[in-house]
Amino acid sequence: MAYSSKLLERAVEQFSTLPGIGRKSALRMALYMLRQPRENVELFASSLVSLANNVKHCKVCNMVSDEDRCPVCQDPRRNHSLICVVESARDVLSIENTQIYNGLYHVLGGIISPMDGVGPSDLTIAELEKRIEDGGVKEVVMALSTGMEGETTAYFLYNRLKKYDIKITTIARGVAFGDDLEYTDELTLAKSIENRQPFKF
Amino acid sequence: MAYSSKLLERAVEQFSTLPGIGRKSALRMALYMLRQPRENVELFASSLVSLANNVKHCKVCNMVSDEDRCPVCQDPRRNHSLICVVESARDVLSIENTQIYNGLYHVLGGIISPMDGVGPSDLTIAELEKRIEDGGVKEVVMALSTGMEGETTAYFLYNRLKKYDIKITTIARGVAFGDDLEYTDELTLAKSIENRQPFKF
Repeated sequence: MAYSSKLLERAVEQFSTLPGIGRKSALRMALYMLRQPRENVELFASSLVSLANNVKHCKVCNMVSDEDRCPVCQDPRRNHSLICVVESARDVLSIENTQIYNGLYHVLGGIISPMDGVGPSDLTIAELEKRIEDGGVKEVVMALSTGMEGETTAYFLYNRLKKYDIKITTIARGVAFGDDLEYTDELTLAKSIENRQPFKF
Repeated sequence: MAYSSKLLERAVEQFSTLPGIGRKSALRMALYMLRQPRENVELFASSLVSLANNVKHCKVCNMVSDEDRCPVCQDPRRNHSLICVVESARDVLSIENTQIYNGLYHVLGGIISPMDGVGPSDLTIAELEKRIEDGGVKEVVMALSTGMEGETTAYFLYNRLKKYDIKITTIARGVAFGDDLEYTDELTLAKSIENRQPFKF
Protein backbone atom coordinates (compact mmCIF):
# COMPACT_ATOMS: atom_id res chain seq x y z
CA MET A 1 0.00 0.00 0.00
CA ALA A 2 1.33 3.46 -0.89
CA TYR A 3 0.99 5.83 2.05
CA SER A 4 0.76 9.59 1.67
CA SER A 5 2.84 9.97 4.82
CA LYS A 6 6.04 8.25 5.93
CA LEU A 7 5.13 8.96 9.55
CA LEU A 8 1.82 7.20 9.11
CA GLU A 9 3.50 4.32 7.32
CA ARG A 10 6.01 3.89 10.14
CA ALA A 11 3.27 3.87 12.80
CA VAL A 12 1.29 1.31 10.79
CA GLU A 13 4.40 -0.87 10.53
CA GLN A 14 4.88 -0.71 14.28
CA PHE A 15 1.26 -1.57 15.05
CA SER A 16 1.36 -4.50 12.66
CA THR A 17 4.18 -6.07 14.68
CA LEU A 18 1.66 -6.65 17.49
CA PRO A 19 0.32 -10.20 17.84
CA GLY A 20 -2.89 -10.78 15.89
CA ILE A 21 -2.76 -7.40 14.15
CA GLY A 22 -2.71 -7.29 10.36
CA ARG A 23 -2.09 -4.38 8.02
CA LYS A 24 -5.71 -3.19 8.03
CA SER A 25 -6.15 -3.18 11.80
CA ALA A 26 -2.75 -1.50 12.15
CA LEU A 27 -3.86 1.28 9.82
CA ARG A 28 -7.08 1.64 11.76
CA MET A 29 -5.09 1.98 14.99
CA ALA A 30 -2.64 4.50 13.54
CA LEU A 31 -5.47 6.66 12.20
CA TYR A 32 -7.21 6.35 15.56
CA MET A 33 -4.05 7.62 17.23
CA LEU A 34 -4.01 10.56 14.83
CA ARG A 35 -7.45 11.61 16.03
CA GLN A 36 -6.42 11.53 19.71
CA PRO A 37 -5.14 14.55 21.63
CA ARG A 38 -1.33 14.64 21.73
CA GLU A 39 -1.22 14.07 25.51
CA ASN A 40 -3.06 10.77 25.12
CA VAL A 41 -0.61 9.53 22.52
CA GLU A 42 2.29 10.55 24.71
CA LEU A 43 0.73 8.78 27.68
CA PHE A 44 0.32 5.67 25.55
CA ALA A 45 3.92 5.80 24.39
CA SER A 46 5.36 6.52 27.82
CA SER A 47 3.42 3.69 29.43
CA LEU A 48 5.07 1.27 27.01
CA VAL A 49 8.55 2.67 27.53
CA SER A 50 8.22 2.60 31.29
CA LEU A 51 6.87 -0.96 31.11
CA ALA A 52 9.91 -2.01 29.11
CA ASN A 53 12.38 -0.15 31.29
CA ASN A 54 11.06 -0.63 34.78
CA VAL A 55 9.16 -3.88 35.01
CA LYS A 56 10.90 -6.75 36.82
CA HIS A 57 10.36 -10.43 37.27
CA CYS A 58 9.66 -11.74 40.76
CA LYS A 59 12.85 -13.34 42.08
CA VAL A 60 10.84 -16.20 43.56
CA CYS A 61 8.20 -17.13 41.00
CA ASN A 62 9.33 -15.25 37.86
CA MET A 63 6.00 -13.45 37.56
CA VAL A 64 5.89 -9.94 36.05
CA SER A 65 6.19 -7.55 38.97
CA ASP A 66 7.07 -3.97 39.92
CA GLU A 67 9.22 -5.13 42.83
CA ASP A 68 11.75 -7.87 43.47
CA ARG A 69 9.03 -10.04 44.93
CA CYS A 70 5.54 -10.06 43.43
CA PRO A 71 2.44 -9.31 45.56
CA VAL A 72 1.41 -12.99 45.56
CA CYS A 73 4.77 -14.21 46.91
CA GLN A 74 4.72 -11.42 49.50
CA ASP A 75 1.21 -12.18 50.72
CA PRO A 76 1.33 -14.02 54.10
CA ARG A 77 -2.34 -15.09 53.73
CA ARG A 78 -1.53 -17.27 50.72
CA ASN A 79 -0.68 -20.93 51.07
CA HIS A 80 3.10 -20.98 50.65
CA SER A 81 3.27 -24.79 50.60
CA LEU A 82 1.38 -25.03 47.29
CA ILE A 83 2.97 -24.02 43.99
CA CYS A 84 1.13 -23.89 40.67
CA VAL A 85 3.46 -24.24 37.69
CA VAL A 86 2.37 -22.32 34.59
CA GLU A 87 3.86 -21.44 31.24
CA SER A 88 3.41 -17.67 31.23
CA ALA A 89 2.35 -14.59 33.18
CA ARG A 90 -0.91 -14.65 31.26
CA ASP A 91 -1.82 -18.00 32.83
CA VAL A 92 -1.21 -16.56 36.31
CA LEU A 93 -3.62 -13.71 35.57
CA SER A 94 -6.23 -16.18 34.26
CA ILE A 95 -6.00 -18.33 37.39
CA GLU A 96 -5.99 -15.30 39.71
CA ASN A 97 -9.12 -14.17 37.94
CA THR A 98 -11.00 -17.28 39.13
CA GLN A 99 -10.35 -16.14 42.75
CA ILE A 100 -10.33 -19.81 43.80
CA TYR A 101 -6.60 -20.47 44.03
CA ASN A 102 -4.80 -19.52 47.21
CA GLY A 103 -1.29 -20.92 46.64
CA LEU A 104 1.79 -19.48 44.97
CA TYR A 105 2.92 -19.70 41.35
CA HIS A 106 5.95 -20.59 39.34
CA VAL A 107 6.17 -19.11 35.84
CA LEU A 108 8.31 -21.33 33.59
CA GLY A 109 8.67 -18.63 30.97
CA GLY A 110 7.77 -21.01 28.16
CA ILE A 111 7.26 -24.64 27.33
CA ILE A 112 9.66 -27.30 26.10
CA SER A 113 9.50 -27.10 22.33
CA PRO A 114 12.28 -28.60 20.21
CA MET A 115 10.62 -27.08 17.14
CA ASP A 116 11.06 -23.55 18.52
CA GLY A 117 14.44 -24.38 20.02
CA VAL A 118 13.19 -24.11 23.61
CA GLY A 119 14.87 -26.67 25.87
CA PRO A 120 14.50 -27.33 29.62
CA SER A 121 17.45 -25.04 30.39
CA ASP A 122 15.59 -22.07 28.84
CA LEU A 123 12.86 -22.43 31.45
CA THR A 124 12.98 -21.67 35.18
CA ILE A 125 13.04 -25.34 36.18
CA ALA A 126 16.24 -25.07 38.24
CA GLU A 127 14.66 -22.16 40.14
CA LEU A 128 11.60 -24.31 40.86
CA GLU A 129 13.80 -27.11 42.23
CA LYS A 130 15.63 -24.58 44.38
CA ARG A 131 12.31 -23.43 45.87
CA ILE A 132 11.42 -27.04 46.71
CA GLU A 133 14.87 -27.70 48.18
CA ASP A 134 14.54 -24.60 50.37
CA GLY A 135 11.70 -26.47 52.06
CA GLY A 136 8.10 -25.80 52.99
CA VAL A 137 6.61 -26.92 49.66
CA LYS A 138 4.10 -29.75 49.99
CA GLU A 139 2.47 -29.82 46.56
CA VAL A 140 3.21 -28.75 43.02
CA VAL A 141 0.21 -28.55 40.70
CA MET A 142 1.01 -28.36 37.01
CA ALA A 143 -1.32 -26.15 34.96
CA LEU A 144 0.27 -26.58 31.54
CA SER A 145 -1.43 -26.57 28.18
CA THR A 146 -2.51 -29.83 26.62
CA GLY A 147 -0.91 -30.92 23.38
CA MET A 148 2.44 -32.50 22.81
CA GLU A 149 4.61 -29.69 24.10
CA GLY A 150 2.63 -29.25 27.29
CA GLU A 151 2.62 -33.01 27.94
CA THR A 152 6.36 -33.23 27.28
CA THR A 153 7.03 -30.39 29.71
CA ALA A 154 4.77 -31.96 32.34
CA TYR A 155 6.50 -35.32 31.94
CA PHE A 156 9.94 -33.73 32.14
CA LEU A 157 8.96 -31.78 35.25
CA TYR A 158 7.49 -34.89 36.86
CA ASN A 159 10.76 -36.75 36.33
CA ARG A 160 12.76 -33.92 37.84
CA LEU A 161 10.47 -33.42 40.84
CA LYS A 162 9.57 -36.98 41.79
CA LYS A 163 12.71 -37.32 43.90
CA TYR A 164 11.35 -34.75 46.34
CA ASP A 165 8.90 -35.67 49.09
CA ILE A 166 6.05 -33.63 47.64
CA LYS A 167 2.71 -34.29 45.96
CA ILE A 168 2.77 -33.67 42.21
CA THR A 169 -0.63 -33.02 40.67
CA THR A 170 -2.07 -31.63 37.46
CA ILE A 171 -5.23 -29.62 36.83
CA ALA A 172 -8.35 -31.62 35.96
CA ARG A 173 -9.26 -32.12 32.32
CA GLY A 174 -12.90 -32.61 31.47
CA VAL A 175 -15.93 -31.33 29.66
CA ALA A 176 -16.12 -27.54 30.07
CA PHE A 177 -19.24 -25.94 31.53
CA GLY A 178 -21.62 -25.14 28.72
CA ASP A 179 -20.04 -27.62 26.33
CA ASP A 180 -22.23 -30.22 24.66
CA LEU A 181 -21.13 -33.83 25.07
CA GLU A 182 -21.67 -34.53 21.41
CA TYR A 183 -19.15 -31.86 20.40
CA THR A 184 -16.54 -32.77 23.00
CA ASP A 185 -13.48 -34.58 21.65
CA GLU A 186 -13.10 -38.23 22.66
CA LEU A 187 -9.93 -37.71 24.69
CA THR A 188 -11.52 -35.05 26.88
CA LEU A 189 -14.71 -37.05 27.28
CA ALA A 190 -12.75 -40.19 28.19
CA LYS A 191 -10.70 -38.24 30.77
CA SER A 192 -13.81 -36.72 32.28
CA ILE A 193 -15.39 -40.16 32.77
CA GLU A 194 -12.16 -41.65 34.12
CA ASN A 195 -11.78 -38.81 36.63
CA ARG A 196 -15.42 -38.72 37.67
CA GLN A 197 -16.18 -37.00 40.96
CA PRO A 198 -18.68 -37.61 43.76
CA PHE A 199 -21.83 -35.66 42.98
CA LYS A 200 -22.14 -32.49 45.07
CA PHE A 201 -24.87 -29.88 45.29
CA MET B 1 -8.56 -8.51 36.92
CA ALA B 2 -5.90 -8.06 39.60
CA TYR B 3 -2.49 -7.40 38.07
CA SER B 4 0.76 -8.19 39.82
CA SER B 5 2.26 -5.06 38.31
CA LYS B 6 0.92 -1.51 38.06
CA LEU B 7 3.17 -0.92 35.05
CA LEU B 8 1.65 -3.90 33.27
CA GLU B 9 -1.83 -2.79 34.24
CA ARG B 10 -1.24 0.69 32.84
CA ALA B 11 0.08 -0.68 29.54
CA VAL B 12 -2.93 -3.01 29.26
CA GLU B 13 -5.25 -0.06 29.89
CA GLN B 14 -3.56 1.91 27.13
CA PHE B 15 -3.73 -0.95 24.62
CA SER B 16 -7.40 -1.51 25.40
CA THR B 17 -8.18 2.06 24.30
CA LEU B 18 -7.33 1.01 20.72
CA PRO B 19 -10.28 0.33 18.40
CA GLY B 20 -11.38 -3.31 18.42
CA ILE B 21 -9.06 -4.29 21.27
CA GLY B 22 -10.57 -5.81 24.40
CA ARG B 23 -8.97 -6.57 27.74
CA LYS B 24 -7.60 -9.97 26.69
CA SER B 25 -5.97 -8.80 23.47
CA ALA B 26 -4.57 -5.77 25.31
CA LEU B 27 -2.96 -8.07 27.88
CA ARG B 28 -1.56 -10.21 25.09
CA MET B 29 -0.05 -7.10 23.46
CA ALA B 30 1.42 -5.78 26.71
CA LEU B 31 3.04 -9.15 27.49
CA TYR B 32 4.31 -9.30 23.92
CA MET B 33 5.92 -5.87 24.42
CA LEU B 34 7.57 -7.18 27.59
CA ARG B 35 9.28 -9.90 25.60
CA GLN B 36 10.68 -7.44 23.04
CA PRO B 37 14.12 -5.82 23.26
CA ARG B 38 13.94 -2.35 24.82
CA GLU B 39 14.99 -0.63 21.58
CA ASN B 40 11.99 -2.09 19.77
CA VAL B 41 9.59 -0.81 22.39
CA GLU B 42 11.21 2.61 22.26
CA LEU B 43 10.97 2.61 18.46
CA PHE B 44 7.30 1.71 18.73
CA ALA B 45 6.65 4.48 21.25
CA SER B 46 8.62 7.12 19.37
CA SER B 47 6.91 6.35 16.07
CA LEU B 48 3.57 7.11 17.73
CA VAL B 49 4.77 10.31 19.35
CA SER B 50 6.31 11.58 16.15
CA LEU B 51 3.13 10.67 14.25
CA ALA B 52 1.09 12.73 16.72
CA ASN B 53 3.52 15.65 16.77
CA ASN B 54 4.65 15.95 13.18
CA VAL B 55 1.96 14.70 10.87
CA LYS B 56 -0.01 17.33 8.95
CA HIS B 57 -3.10 17.46 6.83
CA CYS B 58 -2.76 18.41 3.19
CA LYS B 59 -3.91 22.03 2.80
CA VAL B 60 -5.68 21.14 -0.43
CA CYS B 61 -7.40 17.81 0.14
CA ASN B 62 -7.12 17.34 3.94
CA MET B 63 -5.35 13.98 3.53
CA VAL B 64 -2.81 12.86 6.15
CA SER B 65 0.56 14.08 4.91
CA ASP B 66 4.11 14.86 5.99
CA GLU B 67 4.12 18.13 4.07
CA ASP B 68 1.70 21.00 3.49
CA ARG B 69 0.59 19.38 0.25
CA CYS B 70 0.22 15.61 -0.02
CA PRO B 71 2.06 13.61 -2.72
CA VAL B 72 -1.20 13.10 -4.66
CA CYS B 73 -1.99 16.82 -4.86
CA GLN B 74 1.63 17.54 -5.81
CA ASP B 75 1.73 14.95 -8.59
CA PRO B 76 1.48 16.65 -12.01
CA ARG B 77 0.67 13.33 -13.70
CA ARG B 78 -2.63 13.03 -11.85
CA ASN B 79 -5.86 14.38 -13.29
CA HIS B 80 -6.39 17.62 -11.37
CA SER B 81 -9.85 18.18 -12.87
CA LEU B 82 -11.32 15.13 -11.08
CA ILE B 83 -11.93 15.09 -7.31
CA CYS B 84 -13.06 12.03 -5.37
CA VAL B 85 -14.82 12.96 -2.12
CA VAL B 86 -14.32 10.47 0.73
CA GLU B 87 -15.06 10.34 4.40
CA SER B 88 -11.62 9.53 5.78
CA ALA B 89 -7.94 9.02 5.05
CA ARG B 90 -8.54 5.27 5.19
CA ASP B 91 -10.83 5.49 2.16
CA VAL B 92 -8.10 7.31 0.21
CA LEU B 93 -5.66 4.50 0.97
CA SER B 94 -8.22 1.89 -0.08
CA ILE B 95 -8.86 3.62 -3.40
CA GLU B 96 -5.14 4.25 -4.00
CA ASN B 97 -4.63 0.56 -3.43
CA THR B 98 -6.77 -0.29 -6.45
CA GLN B 99 -4.28 1.65 -8.66
CA ILE B 100 -7.14 2.51 -10.98
CA TYR B 101 -7.94 6.05 -9.89
CA ASN B 102 -5.89 8.89 -11.30
CA GLY B 103 -7.66 11.98 -9.95
CA LEU B 104 -7.32 13.92 -6.71
CA TYR B 105 -9.15 13.46 -3.42
CA HIS B 106 -11.05 15.49 -0.91
CA VAL B 107 -11.21 14.09 2.62
CA LEU B 108 -14.33 15.33 4.42
CA GLY B 109 -13.04 14.27 7.81
CA GLY B 110 -16.29 12.57 8.72
CA ILE B 111 -19.87 12.17 7.66
CA ILE B 112 -22.99 14.14 8.55
CA SER B 113 -24.39 12.41 11.61
CA PRO B 114 -26.89 14.23 13.85
CA MET B 115 -26.68 11.30 16.29
CA ASP B 116 -22.96 11.87 16.82
CA GLY B 117 -23.34 15.65 16.68
CA VAL B 118 -21.47 15.96 13.36
CA GLY B 119 -22.95 18.68 11.19
CA PRO B 120 -21.92 19.96 7.74
CA SER B 121 -19.76 22.70 9.29
CA ASP B 122 -17.58 20.05 11.00
CA LEU B 123 -16.60 18.70 7.59
CA THR B 124 -14.34 20.25 4.96
CA ILE B 125 -17.24 21.11 2.66
CA ALA B 126 -16.39 24.85 2.44
CA GLU B 127 -12.82 23.87 1.46
CA LEU B 128 -14.21 21.64 -1.30
CA GLU B 129 -16.34 24.50 -2.63
CA LYS B 130 -13.28 26.76 -2.55
CA ARG B 131 -11.37 24.23 -4.67
CA ILE B 132 -14.18 24.18 -7.22
CA GLU B 133 -14.44 28.00 -7.23
CA ASP B 134 -10.69 28.24 -7.85
CA GLY B 135 -11.44 26.58 -11.20
CA GLY B 136 -10.13 23.63 -13.15
CA VAL B 137 -12.44 21.04 -11.58
CA LYS B 138 -14.65 19.23 -14.07
CA GLU B 139 -16.03 16.34 -12.02
CA VAL B 140 -16.62 15.44 -8.39
CA VAL B 141 -17.18 11.74 -7.71
CA MET B 142 -18.65 10.92 -4.31
CA ALA B 143 -17.33 7.73 -2.71
CA LEU B 144 -19.29 7.80 0.54
CA SER B 145 -20.55 4.89 2.55
CA THR B 146 -24.08 3.63 2.00
CA GLY B 147 -26.55 3.86 4.83
CA MET B 148 -28.49 6.82 6.04
CA GLU B 149 -25.58 9.02 7.08
CA GLY B 150 -23.69 8.47 3.84
CA GLU B 151 -26.81 9.15 1.76
CA THR B 152 -27.56 12.28 3.77
CA THR B 153 -24.05 13.56 3.27
CA ALA B 154 -24.16 12.80 -0.46
CA TYR B 155 -27.50 14.54 -0.79
CA PHE B 156 -26.27 17.57 1.16
CA LEU B 157 -23.12 17.76 -0.97
CA TYR B 158 -25.12 17.42 -4.16
CA ASN B 159 -27.29 20.38 -3.14
CA ARG B 160 -24.26 22.48 -2.36
CA LEU B 161 -22.35 21.60 -5.52
CA LYS B 162 -25.11 21.58 -8.14
CA LYS B 163 -24.77 25.35 -8.67
CA TYR B 164 -21.30 24.83 -10.15
CA ASP B 165 -20.77 23.87 -13.77
CA ILE B 166 -19.30 20.44 -12.96
CA LYS B 167 -20.35 16.82 -13.28
CA ILE B 168 -21.38 15.26 -9.97
CA THR B 169 -21.17 11.46 -9.87
CA THR B 170 -21.16 8.69 -7.31
CA ILE B 171 -19.35 5.34 -7.29
CA ALA B 172 -21.28 2.38 -8.72
CA ARG B 173 -23.19 0.11 -6.36
CA GLY B 174 -23.67 -3.48 -7.36
CA VAL B 175 -23.05 -7.11 -6.61
CA ALA B 176 -19.44 -7.54 -5.47
CA PHE B 177 -17.12 -9.96 -7.24
CA GLY B 178 -17.41 -13.36 -5.61
CA ASP B 179 -20.80 -12.63 -4.05
CA ASP B 180 -23.67 -15.00 -4.71
CA LEU B 181 -26.82 -13.42 -6.11
CA GLU B 182 -28.99 -15.33 -3.66
CA TYR B 183 -27.20 -13.73 -0.69
CA THR B 184 -27.12 -10.20 -2.09
CA ASP B 185 -29.57 -7.79 -0.50
CA GLU B 186 -32.46 -6.63 -2.66
CA LEU B 187 -31.38 -2.99 -2.77
CA THR B 188 -27.93 -3.83 -4.10
CA LEU B 189 -29.31 -6.35 -6.58
CA ALA B 190 -31.91 -3.85 -7.80
CA LYS B 191 -29.24 -1.15 -8.22
CA SER B 192 -26.97 -3.53 -10.09
CA ILE B 193 -29.71 -4.37 -12.58
CA GLU B 194 -30.74 -0.73 -12.96
CA ASN B 195 -27.14 0.32 -13.63
CA ARG B 196 -26.30 -2.57 -15.93
CA GLN B 197 -23.28 -2.11 -18.15
CA PRO B 198 -22.43 -3.18 -21.72
CA PHE B 199 -20.75 -6.58 -21.55
CA LYS B 200 -16.99 -6.36 -22.05
CA PHE B 201 -14.31 -9.02 -22.22
